Amino acid sequence: MQSIALVAFTDFQLLDLTAPYEVFSAMSGISVHVVSKDGGPVRASSGLTISPTRTLSPDFECDVIFVPGGRGVDSVMRDGEFLRAIASVATRATFVTSVCTGALILGAAGQLRGKRATTHWNYHSLLRDFGAIPTRGRIVRDGNLFTGGGVTAGIDFALALTAQLRGTEEAQAIQLGLEYAPSPPFDCGVPETCPASVIQRVEQSTRETKKHRIEAVRDAVAAMPD
Amino acid sequence: MQSIALVAFTDFQLLDLTAPYEVFSAMSGISVHVVSKDGGPVRASSGLTISPTRTLSPDFECDVIFVPGGRGVDSVMRDGEFLRAIASVATRATFVTSVCTGALILGAAGQLRGKRATTHWNYHSLLRDFGAIPTRGRIVRDGNLFTGGGVTAGIDFALALTAQLRGTEEAQAIQLGLEYAPSPPFDCGVPETCPASVIQRVEQSTRETKKHRIEAVRDAVAAMPD
Repeated sequence: MQSIALVAFTDFQLLDLTAPYEVFSAMSGISVHVVSKDGGPVRASSGLTISPTRTLSPDFECDVIFVPGGRGVDSVMRDGEFLRAIASVATRATFVTSVCTGALILGAAGQLRGKRATTHWNYHSLLRDFGAIPTRGRIVRDGNLFTGGGVTAGIDFALALTAQLRGTEEAQAIQLGLEYAPSPPFDCGVPETCPASVIQRVEQSTRETKKHRIEAVRDAVAAMPD
Repeated sequence: MQSIALVAFTDFQLLDLTAPYEVFSAMSGISVHVVSKDGGPVRASSGLTISPTRTLSPDFECDVIFVPGGRGVDSVMRDGEFLRAIASVATRATFVTSVCTGALILGAAGQLRGKRATTHWNYHSLLRDFGAIPTRGRIVRDGNLFTGGGVTAGIDFALALTAQLRGTEEAQAIQLGLEYAPSPPFDCGVPETCPASVIQRVEQSTRETKKHRIEAVRDAVAAMPD
């Protein structure tokens, strides 16, 4: 049976992980695991605590590894042991995937070098530091690497991966089961379509977060093996 | 400070709850709680276990009560004590809300009588048994009652409620923060746009679930006080 491992860590973004989890869990013939560094409960940045089902050891076997983003990526990017485990599992996986700022963790784990990748719009330029080719898109595929945009891109990404693994009809059935016919109340999900005042508001409220993230990326790049 | 209570129960649909939770948690000046019957850990239908932060006693105070759906609604619809607690909290809340088959729980708790409401497309006709006026829609509002369609409607619902509680700009900022510019891989999120073979596949795989749900609704209606 194929298996998918979703990596959880303190202060991960809840929806980054739970949206793909819900899609993957609806797939036929698949074993879905939420994995963390020590297998213990993990608190999402929004406060909810979840219970992973496995420990992410370097010899963990899975067909797909998936890394969400969130405030906690800064700590993970500085955790050499965790990054080596992720790199080890990713190297043996058929598909290496992320949503949102999970791409920065893949970058720090050396998985983006020379590859086209995307991440949350607010942190997109940081991909270059890891040797990636920053590419805006809801889902960006480069070989066996799938990266998604910010948070909610996880639904689109997971359905696209399902279509890849199980064919169109199964992916369509899951989309229908989740009644995924989105109708956003506003046309402002990306800066390109958003009023300047709203962009400014988000940039202002994430200024400190971004400053710390840039430092974490710098530290991660400095610690990467050549 | 305003507060929102999201009701969790065994075999709830993970994404029904976590998508609104993520939106609500990003709101300013709000206290967000996941509540369950006994306050203990709750396992979602897809397997992940979450830790609620409060117990849903009948005297629990909140401004918004939110009920998700999922396989476990059949048991909740037969749990008179739980339904009375939900009804008690809902009666004193400013907004009574649900996504997906959470509407059936609200119905069993006597909250839909004479009101326009929606639920997952596959169970929509069951709303009538609770005296509701079944109304198809991504979000259906009737006075202080907001009901959303299946699963992923929770994102649209939560952003709409945020706009109601905090104004357009804050809701837009949260939408941008979650990069909610959906791009579904297929146009098949509702039966109206879906190939017949895909609808058939979903109907076939949910035949038993639907049979049991119809029985649970019948039992719930029989147990309702006049």
